[in-house]
Amino acid sequence: MNSELMLALDFGGTKHSAGVLARGERVWRAHQRVAAGANADAQSDLSTVLTLARALLDGAQPKAIGVSFGGPVDARAGSVRLSHHVRGWENIPLRELVAREFGAPAAVDNDANVGAWGEYHFGAGKGLDSLLYMTVSTGVGGGWVLGGKIWRGADNLAGEIGHVVVDPHGPVCLCGKRGCVERFASGPYIARRAREWLQEQPTRGPLLRTMANQQIEHITAQMVSAAAAEGDELAWDALHVAAWALGVGIGNAVNLMNPARVILGGGVTKSGERFWSVLRRMARETALPQLQFEIVPAALGDDAPLWGAVALAEACLTA
Amino acid sequence: MNSELMLALDFGGTKHSAGVLARGERVWRAHQRVAAGANADAQSDLSTVLTLARALLDGAQPKAIGVSFGGPVDARAGSVRLSHHVRGWENIPLRELVAREFGAPAAVDNDANVGAWGEYHFGAGKGLDSLLYMTVSTGVGGGWVLGGKIWRGADNLAGEIGHVVVDPHGPVCLCGKRGCVERFASGPYIARRAREWLQEQPTRGPLLRTMANQQIEHITAQMVSAAAAEGDELAWDALHVAAWALGVGIGNAVNLMNPARVILGGGVTKSGERFWSVLRRMARETALPQLQFEIVPAALGDDAPLWGAVALAEACLTA
Repeated sequence: MNSELMLALDFGGTKHSAGVLARGERVWRAHQRVAAGANADAQSDLSTVLTLARALLDGAQPKAIGVSFGGPVDARAGSVRLSHHVRGWENIPLRELVAREFGAPAAVDNDANVGAWGEYHFGAGKGLDSLLYMTVSTGVGGGWVLGGKIWRGADNLAGEIGHVVVDPHGPVCLCGKRGCVERFASGPYIARRAREWLQEQPTRGPLLRTMANQQIEHITAQMVSAAAAEGDELAWDALHVAAWALGVGIGNAVNLMNPARVILGGGVTKSGERFWSVLRRMARETALPQLQFEIVPAALGDDAPLWGAVALAEACLTA
Repeated sequence: MNSELMLALDFGGTKHSAGVLARGERVWRAHQRVAAGANADAQSDLSTVLTLARALLDGAQPKAIGVSFGGPVDARAGSVRLSHHVRGWENIPLRELVAREFGAPAAVDNDANVGAWGEYHFGAGKGLDSLLYMTVSTGVGGGWVLGGKIWRGADNLAGEIGHVVVDPHGPVCLCGKRGCVERFASGPYIARRAREWLQEQPTRGPLLRTMANQQIEHITAQMVSAAAAEGDELAWDALHVAAWALGVGIGNAVNLMNPARVILGGGVTKSGERFWSVLRRMARETALPQLQFEIVPAALGDDAPLWGAVALAEACLTA
């Protein structure tokens, strides 16, 4: 019996994944993750993911398809606006392409919204009416579920907590503004800050230096986290700034929207209890005292968007 | 014919108002504003407003009642939590009191939400799907309409844009945090900043000094606005800080929620084109470039909450 198969697809910047299960099931019948090609463009990404999906479906036809895309999406139109990582994604009608390929209705949204939707249905947001979901890794993205619906904003651009300004006198971000959350808290900026400090402060950060075999230019945010966990104070200071900025950004978002819960995923949030305690304290100090809220780790981890895609697919059938 | 009379009530900190019209009408049949008593408490406020309402109704019975209250409200329960200005309002079941008094269904919400609702139905937000409404006067409050509904948050506390932190190194606000929008932009803080600068800089602000008859301690935000409009540079500097903070707060709110429009009311926003241009420029610089939004003055002015109460009343009949 496969009359109600759901196909979930996740187009990421560096890896893609796909999963198949029957409507209402919560265990994959088939599920696989693949790395994106080194010189991938939109065409090769599409070909990779569709080939993977066909293999997982093994000749069966899905009843509905949900798609998460790692970049700006016009969810109403079902089209990708562009990718910041992979060329060729400008104005691609992904919903239509996928629907035609498999002969089933499809829904498409960006990975932060779909991740929020996944946590809302199956993860740390189950049973709540509102949540803010954030991913903190190469970038800092956010998605809202409010009143049981994804809140996309007037132009599908809501959720840009990565570019909330937490220090107007802070350093310049990639986006051109000063002091954005992302400028302090994304993995690449954490690594860059640690590298700069190691250059400037030659006696500090011995553990971090050892971890990188003295090759400061190779230092990553993961190394900074690992060194901080081992007691390297320079590494901890570099991480502390990220926790501080995330906490201020979250506290301000809570002041504005009063969500029931804030859910954090992404590699940077795996930086240990000390990181979480600074983040939680700053959010608490930034939000008004009468605001009650919890900040919790994503329950679905990196699979939140794929599970959100399942919920999108199931919604296609009830819409 | 008065079979479909709507009663709208607005409990403010310093003044109250009430209005009566028939369902669907957009011109008051009767409307009046009264000052709150000097030693008002909840009991006297209630008595004042109910007496006014009975006079306006002139023996007729309303079909539904909408109520705006200037303080935290539990809209779902229909009860006032407290007033920051008037004693005795702790946990008052205002919806029930009013409904019983007039024998009609009632709805109650705080003035920022009801103001947003008024602008959405009858003012600068007509025809939009989402908006942020702000009042900037004694305090700085905000209300959201998202997807055609008031967004109240998990605990009726959404919209606290006055306590969004725009400068973590800024001065301490009444709420205990540093660098809140309200700490820079509310009328009392604008006046206080101007007074402090006049004390510290004895050669500056001649116009403002003259306006206050050299009695610096009597300076109000209105005087600061008026002096700035006449070219007093100290007054303008004091006002500029308010416009800056509002712009940063609004830009961050736009990054998070992508509303179609931001609508500003309250006395401080009547500070002229130069004030508005700084505010708009800072919001533009704080929001991501791809975000499109307008910041416009409230179309209903101080009556936004009373008109919102009309919309609340009408919704009682269709709910």
